[in-house]
Amino acid sequence: MRADEVDVVALDVFGTTVDWWTGITGRIAEIAAAGGVDVDAAALAGAWRDRYLPSMARVRDGERPWTPLDTLHRESLDDLLEAFGVADRFDEQPRRELVRGWYRLPAWEDVADGLERLRERFLVVALSNGGFGLLTRLTKDAGLRFDAIVSSELARTYKPDPAAYRTAVDLLGVEPARMLMVACHGWDIAGAANAGLRTAFLERPGEKGPQRVADRAADTPSDLAVRSVHELATALGC
Amino acid sequence: MRADEVDVVALDVFGTTVDWWTGITGRIAEIAAAGGVDVDAAALAGAWRDRYLPSMARVRDGERPWTPLDTLHRESLDDLLEAFGVADRFDEQPRRELVRGWYRLPAWEDVADGLERLRERFLVVALSNGGFGLLTRLTKDAGLRFDAIVSSELARTYKPDPAAYRTAVDLLGVEPARMLMVACHGWDIAGAANAGLRTAFLERPGEKGPQRVADRAADTPSDLAVRSVHELATALGC
Repeated sequence: MRADEVDVVALDVFGTTVDWWTGITGRIAEIAAAGGVDVDAAALAGAWRDRYLPSMARVRDGERPWTPLDTLHRESLDDLLEAFGVADRFDEQPRRELVRGWYRLPAWEDVADGLERLRERFLVVALSNGGFGLLTRLTKDAGLRFDAIVSSELARTYKPDPAAYRTAVDLLGVEPARMLMVACHGWDIAGAANAGLRTAFLERPGEKGPQRVADRAADTPSDLAVRSVHELATALGC
Repeated sequence: MRADEVDVVALDVFGTTVDWWTGITGRIAEIAAAGGVDVDAAALAGAWRDRYLPSMARVRDGERPWTPLDTLHRESLDDLLEAFGVADRFDEQPRRELVRGWYRLPAWEDVADGLERLRERFLVVALSNGGFGLLTRLTKDAGLRFDAIVSSELARTYKPDPAAYRTAVDLLGVEPARMLMVACHGWDIAGAANAGLRTAFLERPGEKGPQRVADRAADTPSDLAVRSVHELATALGC
């Protein structure tokens, strides 16, 4: 893949540009402490994220109608608070705050500057399963500058449904092969390739916290494999 | 209207934040000169823009299915080149370049800094009838930083259809009354008010060039009337 074969760089968000694990673990610990509740915040954060793909799959497969991510997050949380035996310790208000925790997550340290480099040469967009309003607030809060926010919500489905990638391609008026999808998850890379996009696997070894193994570039075919947005910018001649 | 009653500030684009008249008149003059064609660029630019509302009305009223703005622009241009007696002097390539002229227009001088002031307190988005890809490229080229780009295209209709404003409200997860629509056209202000939004009429006396009269705040009820984005930011306590 040559840099002049690409017009648009689309970056996934949770894990790829922001550190959801640190953000959500911290938020759970904070809210639990405020309520005097003893809960394993890291375990709950991991379990919550583990519900992410299965919950979206039910929407993608048509098992249930279009459902926004905030609703899926809330349903998974309600289940898990039961499973962790702390359901009676979290009222409506802290549950809302926890779901809202996904609106405010720290960016990986290479991203803000790396995006500026990419923006000099390419149209650079976020392309995530987060809702449009969530992504708008999250990227602003994290100080990440994208040229536009694109959410799977605009296609009323979720990645890796090809429609999610193709809606982005259509809205931006670009050939699929001239859009580069950047993600740290094998399923997202495979989904983008399946929709005709080019792909860059951005490895985030710490994405699932220190106890778990993150997806590795070696396990999924991609056009490019990098370890930071800076490395990506350099590989693309920025 | 108090500043603390607003969460999202949505700004119209053509005329309100960018000077379409200067941009399009210049582009027509440039392309005509390159082809050795004698045409009144200002008159053609004005006539082209005059086709804008009627062309969108046919989509909004269901007279024709969803049609992107680029297509409407092209159809109007083709008609007008006939009407101006220069159809045989503009081939496919210059016609495409002219339509593409709407992707690159100069910002009014108060906008870039004014947006930064607004962004400190509010979520600030573009909300225009321009296509999503057009708006993304236009705002980037003009150096205007929005937190997100919202296009009527996402609702597959055009302002002042209430669905265009309500789609923006839904995507951003905000109450209609907590979104402030900023525009220099009476029909946009009236459309936003009709959809339950708050409104700020931003007067742009030069919007239609020196020969024609632009819309005036006095002719349309709005919650606020200002003459620049800075004046708006000050009125909102930024």
